[in-house]
Amino acid sequence: MGSDTRTRFLDAGTQLFRRQGYSATGVKQLVELGQAPLGSLYHYFPGGKEQVALEGIERAAGRYEVLLERVFARYPDVGDVALAWFAMAATALRQSDFRDGCPIGTLAGEVAVTHDALRDAGRSVFTDWQRRVAARLREVGLSAREARRLATFAVASLEGAILLARVQRSTNPLTDTGRVVAETLRRAVSNTGD
Amino acid sequence: MGSDTRTRFLDAGTQLFRRQGYSATGVKQLVELGQAPLGSLYHYFPGGKEQVALEGIERAAGRYEVLLERVFARYPDVGDVALAWFAMAATALRQSDFRDGCPIGTLAGEVAVTHDALRDAGRSVFTDWQRRVAARLREVGLSAREARRLATFAVASLEGAILLARVQRSTNPLTDTGRVVAETLRRAVSNTGD
Repeated sequence: MGSDTRTRFLDAGTQLFRRQGYSATGVKQLVELGQAPLGSLYHYFPGGKEQVALEGIERAAGRYEVLLERVFARYPDVGDVALAWFAMAATALRQSDFRDGCPIGTLAGEVAVTHDALRDAGRSVFTDWQRRVAARLREVGLSAREARRLATFAVASLEGAILLARVQRSTNPLTDTGRVVAETLRRAVSNTGD
Repeated sequence: MGSDTRTRFLDAGTQLFRRQGYSATGVKQLVELGQAPLGSLYHYFPGGKEQVALEGIERAAGRYEVLLERVFARYPDVGDVALAWFAMAATALRQSDFRDGCPIGTLAGEVAVTHDALRDAGRSVFTDWQRRVAARLREVGLSAREARRLATFAVASLEGAILLARVQRSTNPLTDTGRVVAETLRRAVSNTGD
């Protein structure tokens, strides 16, 4: 029961922050959507809204980590990995009527200058993604430098395509960008065999 | 004098929205940074904060349009165009201690779900950039479809790299992503000559 309430607050925060933004979300809304009293919010999250956001980022990061490793395990080709990842983002946007973009990127972009703890949490997640993608690219033969560069490029392109898709209310930016990213990664890997 | 005041409000809004976000910015802050009374704000912008944001987006879009055409005129190679564009974003971030990201992307990403007029303004700007880049890619020989796809990819990658750079407080995401985007565009163009 207690952990249900905790989870409901995290769910509420994640949804509100990624859709309407961090600053626009009040504690009152967290309590309403979380369906528990204000005292309960501060019981589970003494740091209030910021703590909900921080733990929401960590939880989302953990889920994406599992998803990313699953996609890595499923697709030997790095181009297919990229296509799967962009397709998942497109599905999430379509299913939420273009409301649910990246829960890390949307939040971190808004508060990057004003909330150091949230920005640092976002930075850690992006860095972790870059490292994981770079590790995979090294496994298939790229140099450390090239792997790092392409991993950063892939993560940046995904985040930007999600932003365009939300703002343009269309999955085309994800389809178009995903295809080019996939081709670029495949070409880099095939060049290592030259 | 009157137009000075108007400009100061637009400058204030642009700076506050791109740094701390739209929701976090109050009319009071606009008035303080704009150094003019509240009545003056509503005289020039009867629609208040939203109108300041809308006109700020339009003004920024106009400036980027001029810059983009200048970069197009200066660099015949589309890879050089991309490098110049990513380098300008890096300079703006470095000079502002990683506070000034894209005034369109940061704002539109935050309010995409909650403020239709601002989202639509952001959508128009992104669409215009995509069209201009696609037109340039067509000029150098790409098919309409390939030009459209690569233009969307380039704009998305730039926006995502700016996001990563702000969150990670480093220009590396812009340098790394810019280089890959430049190589990808050059390769696409050189393939048309095959």
